[in-house]
Amino acid sequence: MAQKPSIPKGTRDFSPAEMVRRNYIFDTIKDVFRLYGFQPIETPAMENLSTLMGKYGEEGDKLLFKILNSGDFVSKVSDDVYNEKDSVKLTSQISEKGLRYDLTVPFARFVVQHQNEITFPFKRYQIQPVWRADRPQKGRYREFYQCDVDVIGSTSLLNEAELIQIIDKVFKRLKIETIVKINNRKILAGIAETIGEKERITDITVAIDKLEKIGLEKVNEELSAKGVSDEAIQKLQPILDLEGDTASKLGQLEEIISTSGVGVQGIEEMKTLFSYLEKMNLATNFELDLTLARGLNYYTGAIIEVKAKDVEMGSICGGGRYDDLTGIFGLKDVSGVGVSFGAERIYDVLTQLDLFPPESTETTKVLFVNFGEKEEAYCLPMLSKLRASGINAEIYPDSAKMKKQMNYANKKDIPFVVLAGESEMAAQKFTLKNMESGEQTLVTSEDLIKILS
Amino acid sequence: MAQKPSIPKGTRDFSPAEMVRRNYIFDTIKDVFRLYGFQPIETPAMENLSTLMGKYGEEGDKLLFKILNSGDFVSKVSDDVYNEKDSVKLTSQISEKGLRYDLTVPFARFVVQHQNEITFPFKRYQIQPVWRADRPQKGRYREFYQCDVDVIGSTSLLNEAELIQIIDKVFKRLKIETIVKINNRKILAGIAETIGEKERITDITVAIDKLEKIGLEKVNEELSAKGVSDEAIQKLQPILDLEGDTASKLGQLEEIISTSGVGVQGIEEMKTLFSYLEKMNLATNFELDLTLARGLNYYTGAIIEVKAKDVEMGSICGGGRYDDLTGIFGLKDVSGVGVSFGAERIYDVLTQLDLFPPESTETTKVLFVNFGEKEEAYCLPMLSKLRASGINAEIYPDSAKMKKQMNYANKKDIPFVVLAGESEMAAQKFTLKNMESGEQTLVTSEDLIKILS
Repeated sequence: MAQKPSIPKGTRDFSPAEMVRRNYIFDTIKDVFRLYGFQPIETPAMENLSTLMGKYGEEGDKLLFKILNSGDFVSKVSDDVYNEKDSVKLTSQISEKGLRYDLTVPFARFVVQHQNEITFPFKRYQIQPVWRADRPQKGRYREFYQCDVDVIGSTSLLNEAELIQIIDKVFKRLKIETIVKINNRKILAGIAETIGEKERITDITVAIDKLEKIGLEKVNEELSAKGVSDEAIQKLQPILDLEGDTASKLGQLEEIISTSGVGVQGIEEMKTLFSYLEKMNLATNFELDLTLARGLNYYTGAIIEVKAKDVEMGSICGGGRYDDLTGIFGLKDVSGVGVSFGAERIYDVLTQLDLFPPESTETTKVLFVNFGEKEEAYCLPMLSKLRASGINAEIYPDSAKMKKQMNYANKKDIPFVVLAGESEMAAQKFTLKNMESGEQTLVTSEDLIKILS
Repeated sequence: MAQKPSIPKGTRDFSPAEMVRRNYIFDTIKDVFRLYGFQPIETPAMENLSTLMGKYGEEGDKLLFKILNSGDFVSKVSDDVYNEKDSVKLTSQISEKGLRYDLTVPFARFVVQHQNEITFPFKRYQIQPVWRADRPQKGRYREFYQCDVDVIGSTSLLNEAELIQIIDKVFKRLKIETIVKINNRKILAGIAETIGEKERITDITVAIDKLEKIGLEKVNEELSAKGVSDEAIQKLQPILDLEGDTASKLGQLEEIISTSGVGVQGIEEMKTLFSYLEKMNLATNFELDLTLARGLNYYTGAIIEVKAKDVEMGSICGGGRYDDLTGIFGLKDVSGVGVSFGAERIYDVLTQLDLFPPESTETTKVLFVNFGEKEEAYCLPMLSKLRASGINAEIYPDSAKMKKQMNYANKKDIPFVVLAGESEMAAQKFTLKNMESGEQTLVTSEDLIKILS
């Protein structure tokens, strides 16, 4: 019954080497989250379809992995529905659960379900896989991890500032140079309102976004083609012309959109946020980016996006403020702000820039070569001592050929090997071999612990 | 569209407090695994059903969570099959993937699929959730974590010994007193062979198991009822009568089953294993237990099971040696040995015995009370300094009422609170409040770092 084994397309196995690298990313992120008082939660892989359906648009509903009901599920399908042989209708009667599609909806469900146990503001992080039945392609998987960090139940802009501080610290520790782009939905709304095209925030943002690529003239043509009035386009010109640094841009904008209540509020928020950030001595550059519109339907205040310098790659972190995350589950007026780190892309950036640290605390530091029964018995107590000192150590379990054992050490990237044969045993010492330099030293057990610590 | 949110039965959300405790268990286990040179892998939540089906018996096949194919799956079902309206047949045409049921089969699949990249002996650990459509009940979940550690590609009994050393170290660190019971499938086979009932290993093991509970007479009756010959029962008596410590029992057994080749081999293996263990200075008691038969169809050598003293609870860790893990996927002659830690039960033991450590590195050490804009501005640089020193610290994001902020610190179990108002600002100091003792001290920023470090 031998089968050629494989895994579903779009999914991956992670080897020890990949795990070490992935854990380096997750551990770095988690450490920083904790420094800022965020705490972990986990939710089940499966959620009720009633929780998931309708939250990601029609396309999202299709991309949910659905779990077949257990037992004789088909007997519970009405004949009428069954005879239609329609996949969508049949699904609703044979499947009640789906795999989570993101961490946001399960988090909203969690907050509403546990609202009486939670102390607000609730600062939580969550690092778990999500599943999407997307067509797999380079860099896009059907199972991948999300790393979300959110504060909910507080409208203070200090939360936005601290999230950007977290971004700054995470990427500083990972040694990735980044630029943080910041926008505010209220400013975009203010612009649209000022030019008399309240409903066209998206068109206008897209137009601003294309300015650098296609030039002012083409942008105006596009806006016109989309039905934006000539008068509105005229009014938009000074905004397209904005120049200078963030402070100067904000100053000009403030004048232009001064008649829009929401616009002025957006400017105020932005100023407060930037004044926090300026005092925080960040290593990362941050700037106002009026073209930033990610998740526009969803965010209500700040919009944040992080790009890596030196690499051609989409954003590696992003998020913003949302004022009604939990409303869909019946809990109103809970404002939140959060960002999500793209672990898969960060992995690719670190690989491309060769930034993974060479040493890892997760791998073996020293291998004892196994020369046979007597030598093994001589080595085992030393091995225990090393482990008691917190040093990851192993002995080759069989007295295999030397070459095989050294090959094992090489393949596993073990930096040191201990050789202990007749002469070492007689001298009550150990020969320590540095696998990189090839250097061999005869050492006492005390020295061995010192060198490897 | 408000819905009362819930999660599928048998699944759980984990709150921050639970996560901290769960991570304490996982981190302890992982640290020890690494000390012994084991490395992590991960496999996808979804496996092809062809990988999973038929590996867990008929009952297991039913308990697999199956994923509905995407798109218009129903159009691909032949009319013949569809019209039968049979759940099992229909499933085979509308589902190709399932959620992993354990970590063993995915690991076997991993080893075969990646055999050319793996350096043997392969020492891997894997800590991931598994899913079973079991009827949920107290302590039994539909989603739960397994923590598996295995060495494959080596027949050395040093591996068994080191796994027991790992068990010893894990439970010592968790402060759970345990007893490790050890048996060997070959000894059981030797006993069955010796008494002329080679095929009845299971019946005989069950009988030995019941000895203490129901007495010798009833055991013999049961064996007879199951069709074991009078002669065989007669021959079994000296084995049922075995007394003394492990060494003495092994000595007596050796004589009794001396004509069985496999039996003698089992005795030899046991002696070697015990001689390793005796030199290892374990804190845990270990003993021969001839009644131990867990996974008898599966294990071919050592069988290991761990019970917690002081608590009524099933085994909290178990495993053994298997000689043909990868055969089902076409890779022959790869012997392995491994154990699995029952994280959910360990959690329950630690809870019952109140053994979770009170302090955690995962939670916030200090909260800065937020008295308003000026005070906040005074606190933020201090907050940065603490975080730079690796201290988990947060400031309440709004200048809410004092009572609300203190309540937040209490609910989050934050041990220290910093109060900095007019007088502290004037003195360039901070008032540090110990939340347990209630004691308040006026300190400099240097002292603050020292005290909280």
